[in-house]
Amino acid sequence: MNKENIAATFQTLQQEICLGLENMDGKSVFRSDEWERPEGGGGRTNTIVNGAIIEKGGVAFSAVHGPVSEAMTKQLGMSEGIFFATGISIVLHPINPHVPIIHMNVRYFELDNGTYWFGGGIDLTPHYIVKEQAALFHQRLKGICDRFDVEFYSKHKSWADDYFHIPHRGESRGIGGIFFDHLSEKNSTLTKAEIFDYCKTLAGSFVSIYSEQAILGKDQSYTQEQVAWRNLRRGRYVEFNLVHDRGTKFGLYSGGRTESILMSMPPLANWEYDYQPLNGSKEEETLQLLKQKIDWLSF
Amino acid sequence: MNKENIAATFQTLQQEICLGLENMDGKSVFRSDEWERPEGGGGRTNTIVNGAIIEKGGVAFSAVHGPVSEAMTKQLGMSEGIFFATGISIVLHPINPHVPIIHMNVRYFELDNGTYWFGGGIDLTPHYIVKEQAALFHQRLKGICDRFDVEFYSKHKSWADDYFHIPHRGESRGIGGIFFDHLSEKNSTLTKAEIFDYCKTLAGSFVSIYSEQAILGKDQSYTQEQVAWRNLRRGRYVEFNLVHDRGTKFGLYSGGRTESILMSMPPLANWEYDYQPLNGSKEEETLQLLKQKIDWLSF
Repeated sequence: MNKENIAATFQTLQQEICLGLENMDGKSVFRSDEWERPEGGGGRTNTIVNGAIIEKGGVAFSAVHGPVSEAMTKQLGMSEGIFFATGISIVLHPINPHVPIIHMNVRYFELDNGTYWFGGGIDLTPHYIVKEQAALFHQRLKGICDRFDVEFYSKHKSWADDYFHIPHRGESRGIGGIFFDHLSEKNSTLTKAEIFDYCKTLAGSFVSIYSEQAILGKDQSYTQEQVAWRNLRRGRYVEFNLVHDRGTKFGLYSGGRTESILMSMPPLANWEYDYQPLNGSKEEETLQLLKQKIDWLSF
Repeated sequence: MNKENIAATFQTLQQEICLGLENMDGKSVFRSDEWERPEGGGGRTNTIVNGAIIEKGGVAFSAVHGPVSEAMTKQLGMSEGIFFATGISIVLHPINPHVPIIHMNVRYFELDNGTYWFGGGIDLTPHYIVKEQAALFHQRLKGICDRFDVEFYSKHKSWADDYFHIPHRGESRGIGGIFFDHLSEKNSTLTKAEIFDYCKTLAGSFVSIYSEQAILGKDQSYTQEQVAWRNLRRGRYVEFNLVHDRGTKFGLYSGGRTESILMSMPPLANWEYDYQPLNGSKEEETLQLLKQKIDWLSF
């Protein structure tokens, strides 16, 4: 299993995920853009708009290589040399406020000095948090984690709580999920092949995990007030991605392909000065649940 | 002229600007929020929504003081000690795509070791650039600058070109304007009182400069396609403010009042993957003019 195999597997997974999502959505299909990176490598950015469920979304694959840049040294703490990086990134913004926004990413880095690591994560951002659905999401993730290491779920769930958080709002982005980085045989009980399998399993489960969530909300009716709330939550999503998300910031500062990086941006995000939800409203209930360290499994 | 006078003058200017803008808008009025900073000082954030011209905007005043924090040392290069900072910030998002977004800021910093400086700027972000209107805007700014130092316009116009730029898009935010920072008698031909007067004159001219621009566009009819383009440009405005604007980033990272900092966010911003304007369209023409180093006065 070398870097070419890993990239090829990720690229195949991208295609399978897109087919699965088209099947789930039932209306719209992905548009595919191939691009090359002048310094080495390239990618394929698949985007979808105006579906029955998905209003705007993207499933991006890339495999890039070249000399470690100053930005990488400074922001990722990488040593000098030649790097190789490949991964899949997904963000989907649904139409119906009762369907959550979702994000998933798996990635592999390798340096020519022989070091490598895997990273990844998945997190769910319901516009309205429904405890049973949140529990279901975390159960699925625990199920995946437990197949590889019984400590992964609690470790990677805590990591997601820390990562998918908006400090300037004192809010979590959503109900979290799992997040891990710099994972290799050096710091885990798994072999390289097993860690890769963990990433593949996560990516391979994406469509069923999201479909399960989407189906529960997609046919629910909604009001214009709920659409307005959805748009405000999209605004928070923008704030997280542009102010805090390390991947986005790194990509933009280091001269990555802007359209691929910002395929995560929502359609029609809104900001309202000092918005306060009504007492006892569903919006207030959701805000009160946008906290770290909630044991979603226990709901 | 001490720091209290400067703050009091800025606060009075805030009120005058809000009255002037209410008069210009003719429909909506500002809501005023006073807030205190736990570490010292506070501010008054005035916001307006759903006007005849302005869809969402804010005119914020603050005067804060306290020990120089780690974030200030790291991000502003300030030495240790006690600081005092006061300023006015304005961002207005109009409804009509033919009326430009505008931003203005004047600010004063002082350290207890006796050093001080003024900073400020104003820049215009037309959704559709009209050369004659851009020239008018820059003529007004040159008129203000020339009253203080005949080199100010060219220096501070270049500084604005550098500052109000979105590197990851290869686009300027708009048609620029003027920007200056760390201005004191040490690095200019002016006395402290004259630099303060430069800031006061800029702030005092804000309403007439913007009214002149707004009047030219506010009664023009517009299409849904032009609204869609306006929303995309608002998305770019969000990107600049959250990814690049030093004031916004510093405020958010250092624990400033989030709602006051992010009053600059637009209503209903949109993102579209890899948007390309039609050949020969007004949108394409505007994109081609979102460049640095354009001599707007010569149009």
